[in-house]
Order: sequence, then structure tokens, then C-alpha cells
Amino acid sequence: MNQREQLSVRALQWHNDTLKVLDQRNLPAEIRYDVYTDAQGVADAIASMRVRGAPAIGIAAAYGVYLSVKRHFGQAPETWHDAVHADIETLKRSRPTAVNLFWAIGQMQEHINGNRKQPLSGLLEKAKQIHQQDIDANHRMGEFGTQLLDGAQGVLTHCNAGALATGGYGTALGVIRSAVKNGLENVYATETRPWRQGARLTVWELQEDGIAVTLIADSAAAWLMKSGKIQWLVVGADRIAANGDVANKIGTYALAVLAKQHQVNVMVVAPTSTIDISTQCGEEIEIEHRNPVELLDPVYLQENSLIQGWNPVFDVTPAALISAIVTENGVVTSPTEKGVRSLLT
Amino acid sequence: MNQREQLSVRALQWHNDTLKVLDQRNLPAEIRYDVYTDAQGVADAIASMRVRGAPAIGIAAAYGVYLSVKRHFGQAPETWHDAVHADIETLKRSRPTAVNLFWAIGQMQEHINGNRKQPLSGLLEKAKQIHQQDIDANHRMGEFGTQLLDGAQGVLTHCNAGALATGGYGTALGVIRSAVKNGLENVYATETRPWRQGARLTVWELQEDGIAVTLIADSAAAWLMKSGKIQWLVVGADRIAANGDVANKIGTYALAVLAKQHQVNVMVVAPTSTIDISTQCGEEIEIEHRNPVELLDPVYLQENSLIQGWNPVFDVTPAALISAIVTENGVVTSPTEKGVRSLLT
Repeated sequence: MNQREQLSVRALQWHNDTLKVLDQRNLPAEIRYDVYTDAQGVADAIASMRVRGAPAIGIAAAYGVYLSVKRHFGQAPETWHDAVHADIETLKRSRPTAVNLFWAIGQMQEHINGNRKQPLSGLLEKAKQIHQQDIDANHRMGEFGTQLLDGAQGVLTHCNAGALATGGYGTALGVIRSAVKNGLENVYATETRPWRQGARLTVWELQEDGIAVTLIADSAAAWLMKSGKIQWLVVGADRIAANGDVANKIGTYALAVLAKQHQVNVMVVAPTSTIDISTQCGEEIEIEHRNPVELLDPVYLQENSLIQGWNPVFDVTPAALISAIVTENGVVTSPTEKGVRSLLT
Repeated sequence: MNQREQLSVRALQWHNDTLKVLDQRNLPAEIRYDVYTDAQGVADAIASMRVRGAPAIGIAAAYGVYLSVKRHFGQAPETWHDAVHADIETLKRSRPTAVNLFWAIGQMQEHINGNRKQPLSGLLEKAKQIHQQDIDANHRMGEFGTQLLDGAQGVLTHCNAGALATGGYGTALGVIRSAVKNGLENVYATETRPWRQGARLTVWELQEDGIAVTLIADSAAAWLMKSGKIQWLVVGADRIAANGDVANKIGTYALAVLAKQHQVNVMVVAPTSTIDISTQCGEEIEIEHRNPVELLDPVYLQENSLIQGWNPVFDVTPAALISAIVTENGVVTSPTEKGVRSLLT
């Protein structure tokens, strides 16, 4: 691990043939790692949001596939494939919106299919490679994004697209980390209801790296933009469609509309594994709705209650509202399908 | 009390020469009334947000002025005036943004100044009149607003401009109450961070009246608008400037910008006591910033923390983003200074 990587927290750690997962539900109050030894456990860690963030859940799933093959190939060398297939289906059902999950599982499946006789051969190395490549990609995106931010005095980020959401360093927060080294002074983070990824995770991991940050309520973002204090909105992505539409944390669409009205630029930072070229546009992306219990006070959770909750946890920002998409392969400004495809070649 | 008024909760109750205040900090978990016998206590009830909402804090302050005169005139009939003056200054300092506070205190002062020999004469009746007139105004606004909403299938409200924020019935929620009687089917409420007035107060008081409501995260409003499910945003106001700019709960400005982009109309509902004709435009309105502890996890509240909070609790929506201002004296669409002034004559 080089010095740069030590700068940021690691949400996922591979240790003694187990996956250690930092339980992000309890941050910042408690720093606790859970240890997983099988794919079902990893799927539960994703579904329960112990680990979250598109790149991170992809990496976790990759390790989950390895744990599945290790267990079932060892127990039943003749019939292991069906059990692994079932585990993979469980992993795929853990969250619907982020495409990195399906991408990473696909990478692992391809490796297994190429080694049916010895499926464990090189499989752990493949998962570790997915993990390390994500970290490397984050550092490259950090440098690309910093160049775009040149001269910005303030930036706003939404949700947590940081070390905690990735293999390490972060996508949006990777850009912010790099930009702060380069002189960026004012970093603002939204609280990000209902799960408060901004209030609990983003400010925590930036502080751990010695970076000052100012937290705002989600609904204060427009008033902040009007004040002239920020020039860029910098966010991650859960899925990028072929035409450049971006699914990301609920509220990203609102912030992008508001940014447009206030001459604030919008940067989406994501590895190319977040691009789903088979999805033509945002309308085709499945948007996860989570339990309204995340919004409602317990007293309302009765049968026949007149009070309901509507809790989509992602939304889609049209490409037209996005100033630049930053990937490890380069940057596309004013994204179009042609531009997005150019990132994949 | 007529039947209509019984329909909604009463946050302020005058009983046995004391002011009973429903402590809104604990709703919906606990329904507890605190009893106040002096102006200092009432000022504290306002500053601590036991009672909140522009009309309600005006009414509370009116009763506070009466309690002050009653105490000090009784104790020192020669020098009572200085003590009352000091109490009034304390009441004025309790919250800075809502103009109804200053308006109601001004009404009471005028009455006192006209009765220097017998300042208690008719003074309680004056406070009760301010209270009752607010309720009556809410019912008139409810009818005016309902006519504007004609045909709307869904509305969104922000914060709590309801019975809890007024003498009873509510401004924005008064319109929604009237519109539901008239056939409106879909009512959405934002959570309204950081204090969660929507999640704790608005959904609670609507449910108490048998009105179904769907709660959303503040940052889901744009996505809701994009879905086409709402045709109007209906909000209250803390201060309306002469040119029609409106100070209201933080996030109102964001919602109004988003409404404009989604062809959703914006209705501001407030009694004329919320109009501050001496304030020319929104830039002149003092915006209250509250303690960032409302946003930050306790673990961050250390000296020299790198994590700060920016917590403005109001913002200003320019008149150009407002479709209609509804008062008890009538409605002004596409508000201008001429239109706002016409409401006061």
C-alpha cells in the first residue's frame, strides 16, 4: 500500500481469507468491522447497507463470488456450479440500481467460466485486482477532476462517493481530496437524507484525512448556490446510461437543476465500470425504493395509518444538466452517447 | 368554538389567565402542554421552538405582552412601564425573521399606549382578538386558496404552516384542509430538515384530521415534480416584502426554482400580518441562522473540529417565482409591489 492510499479509510479489507466490512450504519458513532466468510453474508452486508456505494458493492460482490466458489467447490467438486449460481443470484438481488454490482459479478463469472476445471485458480487474485484497479482508477479520476476544477473556490458534494463507497480514495471525494492538495479551500457536503451519508460518512472520512468540510441541510443547497460560494457540484454515480444520463443518490437531480439555474457546473465522477452501455437512457434504469421507515417516525408505522412515505433512494439526472463525466479513461464534457462510448475504447 | 375549528389541534390555549403551549419539540412522540405565566417564559417558549410558525409566535407574543403588563402593573403601578418595555424587548429578540412577532407586539403596544392609566383594560381581549382573527383569516385563506387549486390532483407542502403554526386551522395547511374537503386527493409533505417540521408536525396534524398524506425526503421533491404527480407547491411565509419576495423555511427557495422548471405552480399563503411593507425586498430580511448542532452528530461537536455546519433556517424566494400570494383580504397572482400593497387596503 503506498502512502496515498493510507490517507483514506478502507471500508473493505481482505484478511485471512475473509472479507472485513466496516459497518457504515453505525458511523460515526462506532467503528466496527464485520467479518464475512460466505456469499450469503456478503449479500446481506450489501442489502443491509453495511457496505454501500456503487464501486464498493461491486468489489464486495467480487469477493463474495470467490467465497462462494471456495466453499462449494471444496465441498462438492462435481456439483459446485449450481450452488455458486444460486449465490450469484442472491448477490445480484442485493441492490438493484448500481451497475457496478452486475459488472463485477460478470467479471468473476467470466473468470470462472474460463477455468471450469480449476475455478479457484486465480479467482481471489481476480477479486483483488478488481479492488486494486478501482483504487487506481480513483486516483486517476482525482487528477482529471482537479484539472477541471481549476480555480474553483468552493465545491458541493452529495451523498458519499468517497473512500467508504469505493475500494479506497473515492470518486467525487477522490477529486475533492486531490483538489484540496491543489489549493481548493471550501468543501461543502449535503446531509443526504434519509440515510445521512453526507452527515455520517462524508464529513467523517474527510475529517479523518484532515480536510475541513461544512455540512448543510439538503434543502439549503440552492441558498448556498445563490450566495456564490460554490462553482462546482461534484458527485458520484450508480449507473451511467449510454446517452450520459446518470442515476445517483436521490437529490442529485434536484441539485443538478438548481446548479443549472445558478451557473454552477456539475461533475459526475465514476469508473467506467459504472457505465452501462446496454442501458440506452435514464428511463430504463431501475430505481430502488427503500422502506419508508427510513423517513417515518415509529409512531406512524401502524397498519391503516393515513401517513405513508415515498422513498426512492436514487434519481436520474439527464445528460443535458451534466457539465462533465470524469472516468479513469478520461473526461467527457457535455456528455452525449458518442462521448460516453469514447470512454470505453 | 365552532365545529370547523374543533377539526384541528390548538398549539396555543389561553386558560386560567395562563398561556398553555403545546411543546412541538416532542411531537409526535409526546403531547405535552407547558404553562406560562410571564413574558420571559413566553419568550423562552418561542426561542426554544416549543412554539413556532410565524402567526403562532405572534399570537404567543401578544399573550406574553398581556402577562407582562398584568404582572408589572399589579406590582408597581407607578413604574410598570419600564419593566414591560424590557419584557417586550426580550420578546422581540426571541426570533428574528418572522414579522408577525413584531406586528403582534406592535398591536399590543398601541393598545397599551392608548390606555396608559388602565393598561389592562381590554388588553387580554386584544390578545384574544389577535388570536381569533388569525383563525378566521386562515379559514378565509383556505377558501381563496382552494379556488386557485381547482382541478389539482396533487399538492406538495414544505415545513409546517398548519394549525400548529397559527392560531388554528393553518395557512398552507388551511388551504389543503379546505381543498381536501373539495376533493383534492394527493397531499405530499417534505420532511423539512433539520427540524423535521414536515415529518413530525405536518403529517401528524393532518392525520389527526383524518387527511391522508405522503411524506418525502426534501431532496426527493424534484423527482416527485418530474413524475407529474403534483400541480401546486403550497407554503406559508415568515415575512413578505413589499415587492412580493417571501422569506420562508429553508428549502422553499429551492422548491420554487424546481417548481418553475417543472411547470408546478407556487402558492404562498399568509395573513396580511406577515406582509412587512417597510421591507422593500428580500435582501433586506434578516435570515436566522441556528446552531449547527441541529445538523451535526454529537461526536463532531468538539473544539477545533474540522467539521462545521451552515444552518440558515430561512431563505428568500423572489416574487418572480411565486404564482400567487393568498391572504385573508384576497389573492394576488404574479405578485408585484402594486399587488402586495393592494392587499393592505
